[in-house]
Amino acid sequence: WLRTYSRAEFRADLFASALVTVMLIPQSLAYALLAGLPPEAGLYASMFPAVAYACFGSSRVLAVGPVAVISLMTATALADVTSAYDIAWSAAAALLALLSGCFLFLLGLLRMGWIANFLSHAVISGFISASALYIAFGQLPQILGIDAAGDTLVTLLPRLIAGADADADADAVSPAVAWLGGGTIAFLVFARTRFAALLVRFGVTEDVARLAVRAGPVLAVCVGTAIVTALDLTAAGVAVVGAVPSGWPTIVAPPFDWRALLALAPYAMLLSLVGFVESISVGQSLGMRRRQRVEPDRELLGLGAANVVAGVSGAFPVTGGFSRSVVNSDAGAASPLAGALTALGMGLVAAFFTPLFHDMPRAVLAAVIICAVLPLVDLSAMRRAWHHGRADFAALMLTGAGVLLFGVEAGIALGVLVSLGIHLGRSSRPHIAVVGRVPGTEQFRNVDRHAVLTADHVLCVRIDEALWFGNVRFLEERLTNLVASRPAVTELVLQCTAVNGVDGSAMEALERVSEQLAAAGVRLHLAEVKGPAMDALSRAGVPARLSGEIFFTQHEAMRSLAGAPGATVIDDASMQQWRGDGDGI
Amino acid sequence: WLRTYSRAEFRADLFASALVTVMLIPQSLAYALLAGLPPEAGLYASMFPAVAYACFGSSRVLAVGPVAVISLMTATALADVTSAYDIAWSAAAALLALLSGCFLFLLGLLRMGWIANFLSHAVISGFISASALYIAFGQLPQILGIDAAGDTLVTLLPRLIAGADADADADAVSPAVAWLGGGTIAFLVFARTRFAALLVRFGVTEDVARLAVRAGPVLAVCVGTAIVTALDLTAAGVAVVGAVPSGWPTIVAPPFDWRALLALAPYAMLLSLVGFVESISVGQSLGMRRRQRVEPDRELLGLGAANVVAGVSGAFPVTGGFSRSVVNSDAGAASPLAGALTALGMGLVAAFFTPLFHDMPRAVLAAVIICAVLPLVDLSAMRRAWHHGRADFAALMLTGAGVLLFGVEAGIALGVLVSLGIHLGRSSRPHIAVVGRVPGTEQFRNVDRHAVLTADHVLCVRIDEALWFGNVRFLEERLTNLVASRPAVTELVLQCTAVNGVDGSAMEALERVSEQLAAAGVRLHLAEVKGPAMDALSRAGVPARLSGEIFFTQHEAMRSLAGAPGATVIDDASMQQWRGDGDGI
Repeated sequence: WLRTYSRAEFRADLFASALVTVMLIPQSLAYALLAGLPPEAGLYASMFPAVAYACFGSSRVLAVGPVAVISLMTATALADVTSAYDIAWSAAAALLALLSGCFLFLLGLLRMGWIANFLSHAVISGFISASALYIAFGQLPQILGIDAAGDTLVTLLPRLIAGADADADADAVSPAVAWLGGGTIAFLVFARTRFAALLVRFGVTEDVARLAVRAGPVLAVCVGTAIVTALDLTAAGVAVVGAVPSGWPTIVAPPFDWRALLALAPYAMLLSLVGFVESISVGQSLGMRRRQRVEPDRELLGLGAANVVAGVSGAFPVTGGFSRSVVNSDAGAASPLAGALTALGMGLVAAFFTPLFHDMPRAVLAAVIICAVLPLVDLSAMRRAWHHGRADFAALMLTGAGVLLFGVEAGIALGVLVSLGIHLGRSSRPHIAVVGRVPGTEQFRNVDRHAVLTADHVLCVRIDEALWFGNVRFLEERLTNLVASRPAVTELVLQCTAVNGVDGSAMEALERVSEQLAAAGVRLHLAEVKGPAMDALSRAGVPARLSGEIFFTQHEAMRSLAGAPGATVIDDASMQQWRGDGDGI
Repeated sequence: WLRTYSRAEFRADLFASALVTVMLIPQSLAYALLAGLPPEAGLYASMFPAVAYACFGSSRVLAVGPVAVISLMTATALADVTSAYDIAWSAAAALLALLSGCFLFLLGLLRMGWIANFLSHAVISGFISASALYIAFGQLPQILGIDAAGDTLVTLLPRLIAGADADADADAVSPAVAWLGGGTIAFLVFARTRFAALLVRFGVTEDVARLAVRAGPVLAVCVGTAIVTALDLTAAGVAVVGAVPSGWPTIVAPPFDWRALLALAPYAMLLSLVGFVESISVGQSLGMRRRQRVEPDRELLGLGAANVVAGVSGAFPVTGGFSRSVVNSDAGAASPLAGALTALGMGLVAAFFTPLFHDMPRAVLAAVIICAVLPLVDLSAMRRAWHHGRADFAALMLTGAGVLLFGVEAGIALGVLVSLGIHLGRSSRPHIAVVGRVPGTEQFRNVDRHAVLTADHVLCVRIDEALWFGNVRFLEERLTNLVASRPAVTELVLQCTAVNGVDGSAMEALERVSEQLAAAGVRLHLAEVKGPAMDALSRAGVPARLSGEIFFTQHEAMRSLAGAPGATVIDDASMQQWRGDGDGI
């Protein structure tokens, strides 16, 4: 894109980056605190990593930096590892980012982005919604001015309730904090729901109004800070961000510890995959709007580089965030330079404006987080999953429940295992249909759904699944039962249009069934075997050991077999009318 | 079968059971020693469990009792659990059998025999071959008269070699032991390979000769015992079976220990599944020869009952063994009564003949084990797996290597995970074919394999896999790339003959692709969607949100779309001849 870069594009990038920077200031501080790190780590995570992504990534509008869900995963990983090993929290955070970056970069080099596929849509939805709930509730103590913490929502909630009760008749601090936090939430909700309409009424165009709304959090933070300073609320015990060191991070490798590294590795992998899925979803959906292609493998390289850089610049794991990327795109960012300019903006903030953050009340930041994550609780995704089928709904709900009950990692693992289990379970008990010919065509359809023609001594069965070790016994039993219940049958034709593969167990089973049926005077034929499956069967020499033939089409099989001795030549009249007249497909 | 039972059938059962009893005497003692138990446990395992199976099982010829591979799994399970918990070896063995019996019975009641499917043919082959190798090497110390033991072949082999070396210049015991063991092996190999031919030459019919060969081990044991008694070799240090208590076992529940129970549970499950798979394979292959049906769920009940009874009668886990079942069948066993009569025979042995076992040399029993398990090392299975495809071969070799390197449980777990992983991997990168019409038919085939007709602006793509979360990203990318590389295309038709299901992630992806293609001026159609898939799509309301239509057949889709403005009506002449003239399918 550099060669055709124009002055107009630069202006667009500059505007977009300014807007994203304004959004990023409170978010970066808040997400650093969410990850249990000092606020400046959030500023650092918004600087060099974004530049690294701009160099390697493929999306033009993705805003890479600290993100709520990844910060939460970072916090839980660090809590586990720092308690077991002698490593400082911020060193572990840097190590986690470095590991995660190396893992992503490696996946990109190996072109293995597909492994993120195993996080299904339902699992991701359940995970994001539950995490958002947990993050939101986790911020409540900051807003209520009480002490309460918990690893999961289940341990957090009772303490929250107990804390709020105990607090009612305790010191005078909480009211000030609660007013600040509650006021911010009220303002942010107002900003999100009404402010745009108000601006439009005052003659602002709708696009500008929509973008201006995004500046709500920074306005809230400014006002909150001003109030704290003016009323000297720090003296009254309102928790503030405190001193944030000025200047840029030093580039230095995190302290190295083999055992901590090994302990962090599984967290790094899961975090990487979740970050990648979030990022690629945002990137692709924004890319689609502008007909720009996002390449998963280059995204892996981009995010990998960003996280490696985060690891050596005193930051923590980052990824492409949803809300800022949308703003970046809506504001007209034309090239990856927008991301780099945002990083520069954050660099200026880190160098010159950190003293302004001293009196920033934590309750207001907590309110910013709550208002940022609550829209992620996606009830419509639950409704959609319900319509998509029981499997999707179960995966979504189990993932969500797992995250809330047992924590993020356990929840995702549960969801992935359940989804894979359901998939395997389905393909081990496949759908099987007895088929007949649709009158006047060469098409064969399920006798239970359509008015079709069949012949007495030829049984045509369609198996709707690859033949593999997980379903061979089931199929053996179904096929022998089907034949056993139809004494007139002398030819069994398997229509293999949906047989997408045949493994060794299935080949042994085919030969076994063929032998068994042959002894009962029934021949086993295959029809419409697809290329890859036929190649596998031929290599293993299966066709020669079958009692019957292999036909190019089901129609040919019927024409040939129904014309055998003892039967009439196949035509619509000689076949019987079967039950069923489904109008589906 | 009881109502029609005849005198002739009784004679057949009596003959078969006598032969199996003779085989069972040395095997039961040897397998008890293999499991680390006193020899009488082997006798007990051959009595009541066989009767229990006869009452519940469905196979008429399966000989249930101690089996080499299950005894090995028992030994490794007990070694792990007795070292960690305060429980006696034989009590743990009984508890393991009881647990395994309950698990099998439960599976039978729940009709869940299908979970054994996940042990693929390749995994079972690899496991059996490797276990046989390990068992055979494990018996070598007994035959060489040295001390050496190991949990896996890898730890065993060096000690075996070191032991044999150290032993060369040590005491005088080993030669006598080695002669006994070596002599027995030589005799058994002779019996197995030449004896039958010799007997036939002396006028014995071939069937009888084949059965007589099976008595070889008992003959070897008799001669070996006679030699030890005559030369008083026990005084010279030859290890013998020793005193075996006379009488029947007392029926008593094994001592109960919650923690040991929990520790044994995973071993019990794996052992149950392996035993079930071995048993059902034998039962089905023998049943097929005689046209008798073996019902998996009744087999589970039968084996479950047998193991529960083994648990309360001082025995250890049992299952249906291959060699004895074959002899039972060949000898003409006509009903489950043969199994009960064998149990009665073993009961008589336990009651009256145990003093005869005192001088039975362990080296000879070790030789019997070696000759019983070595034929299980199945090199032809490796060759077949190679022809069946890389996946099967990899699963077989990895299972085998896992068993030899890490032990039985780890080996099987590795094999199952690898097989499932390969299956998932395949179905997440499915085969996709651009298809065209075979001239003069309604059939559509891969353009790369067949001479088919296509239209310029209609792209027909067949997806050979269910659409699920594991492959949606791959498919999205392939489809958009296929369309992008064909600028003339305005209609994309997905032929769904092989799409066996559509999950929620895939529905979202379909809508996304449809929207994306619509923006590029391409409509997305589906054709030949199968019943279950169509039901799922309709429930979720997907058809209404697609840019194109859903056609009953691919042929209809072509006829309708190729007749659209800007194209000619579809007929063989108006379509172009494509490359390829494969004669496969």
